[in-house]
Amino acid sequence: MGRVTQRRKIHRYVLDGSPSALEFPVRHREDVLAVEEPLEIRLGSLSYSVTMRTPGDDFDLVAGFLVSEGVIWSPDQLISLRFCAGEDENGVQTFNVVEAQLRPDVVLPDTGRHVYTSSSCGICGTDSIEAVRKSSHFSPADDTLTVPVGTLASLPDLLREAQAVFEATGGVHAAGLFSIDDDGAARLLCLREDVGRHNAVDKVVGWALREQRLPLSGTVLQVSGRASFELVQKAALAGIPVLAAVSAPSSLAVELAESSGVTLAGFSRGSSLNVYTGGHRISLPADLPR
Amino acid sequence: MGRVTQRRKIHRYVLDGSPSALEFPVRHREDVLAVEEPLEIRLGSLSYSVTMRTPGDDFDLVAGFLVSEGVIWSPDQLISLRFCAGEDENGVQTFNVVEAQLRPDVVLPDTGRHVYTSSSCGICGTDSIEAVRKSSHFSPADDTLTVPVGTLASLPDLLREAQAVFEATGGVHAAGLFSIDDDGAARLLCLREDVGRHNAVDKVVGWALREQRLPLSGTVLQVSGRASFELVQKAALAGIPVLAAVSAPSSLAVELAESSGVTLAGFSRGSSLNVYTGGHRISLPADLPR
Repeated sequence: MGRVTQRRKIHRYVLDGSPSALEFPVRHREDVLAVEEPLEIRLGSLSYSVTMRTPGDDFDLVAGFLVSEGVIWSPDQLISLRFCAGEDENGVQTFNVVEAQLRPDVVLPDTGRHVYTSSSCGICGTDSIEAVRKSSHFSPADDTLTVPVGTLASLPDLLREAQAVFEATGGVHAAGLFSIDDDGAARLLCLREDVGRHNAVDKVVGWALREQRLPLSGTVLQVSGRASFELVQKAALAGIPVLAAVSAPSSLAVELAESSGVTLAGFSRGSSLNVYTGGHRISLPADLPR
Repeated sequence: MGRVTQRRKIHRYVLDGSPSALEFPVRHREDVLAVEEPLEIRLGSLSYSVTMRTPGDDFDLVAGFLVSEGVIWSPDQLISLRFCAGEDENGVQTFNVVEAQLRPDVVLPDTGRHVYTSSSCGICGTDSIEAVRKSSHFSPADDTLTVPVGTLASLPDLLREAQAVFEATGGVHAAGLFSIDDDGAARLLCLREDVGRHNAVDKVVGWALREQRLPLSGTVLQVSGRASFELVQKAALAGIPVLAAVSAPSSLAVELAESSGVTLAGFSRGSSLNVYTGGHRISLPADLPR
């Protein structure tokens, strides 16, 4: 499926059903990731928006985005769509910028949420991550935290038990920040729930800022749902060394975790989990093979 | 839990385990929704961003958002946070605008994704929906489509069967557009997958625009995951009369569906589903009580 999916080597830990919850032998295998890359949408030569998306049907994405923004509603208002020429450092066309030509009478909305910047370059010809990442004042790469795999795998259950709003509605995401004691046990420092997963993470980070706890060294952030590029970015900017998600990470989430030195775990489901980056922070009982 | 959750009367259909898949008696009950409302973030008197969030811990949300945007990383860079005075039409303070005062030396990022507008009003004192909704050129309220409840409940399974990327990665959302035949059967018109649910919907709508099928009268849009305000808005702007989600809707999704005349179903799981708005479009076998 080409650029839609990407194969990557991971560490997979599966509880063997043995009496000790610490017996998680590690298996080295490949996992298939959904690709996430930035797409810049231009109206003429002006940059209108950047969205993180799975490549494919990009013209439909841009056309539909313009309908959803209330800009157009009829095909004759859209004169043309084309990929803007742009190559990455290896000379490969990136296909990450689409330029739309609209009929001259189409009125662009004054939404207050978009800025029109003249972009001679934009994200043409730059590395996907470099185009969208923000520079961090902290360095999670230097964090010496280690987490027993059994502790890490137990966090989704701890999170769910503490989720009051989800219990009532089934309709919110959660982010829980945990510290790891010297004996390897997890302690919940802060839990926030929100209809938006990114908001739940922001609320945790904002709590930490106000509590003068930044950077969040030695902590694990457990989130419900998937791990996107955006969530890894938020963890890195708060100095969090380990991010674990209940569901799948995207390709760009894994790439950013790797370049930021963040340990990224996914499909964390109590009896199994995948580790995509930073596996040196995952500890196993000494008698088990790594 | 105050403004975090909201109670609402719904129609709940549960398959009784009887031989006919059409025997879904309807039950009138209350459901608890996670509240979703817009929050405007101001830096001084300038509007910086609007985010859809669950009210609560709003100061933490704003502080964390500023950390995640790379604007601040130390508590002494944030001088103060306060709610901007604002009342809705009933004279109730909305608590939907937070103003942050930053230390004068803090550099605001030139991200190209935010616009700084001077906002004397913003979303102070306006109805939540009116503040964020876009006007539609189509009127889903006038659509005369009816859908058998058994057909509607079967769409998540049809969607999942057709999802190639999810099959491989477990990591993407899907949006499937269905037409309903005269005999009440569903036919898949277009399926799109993406790491972002809103992108999957935009790709479907963009396909429809280019195929000259807007407005999408007589169709049902089935999405994986939850139903947010944003997804209902996209459906309404494309003229889609019925939106069904596998998981929970937010409070604002339900409010917008009601005011737009869109039928909104949630927790659609094969053998049961909830209908939040537009129940007149859901048909039952004639011999069953409504």
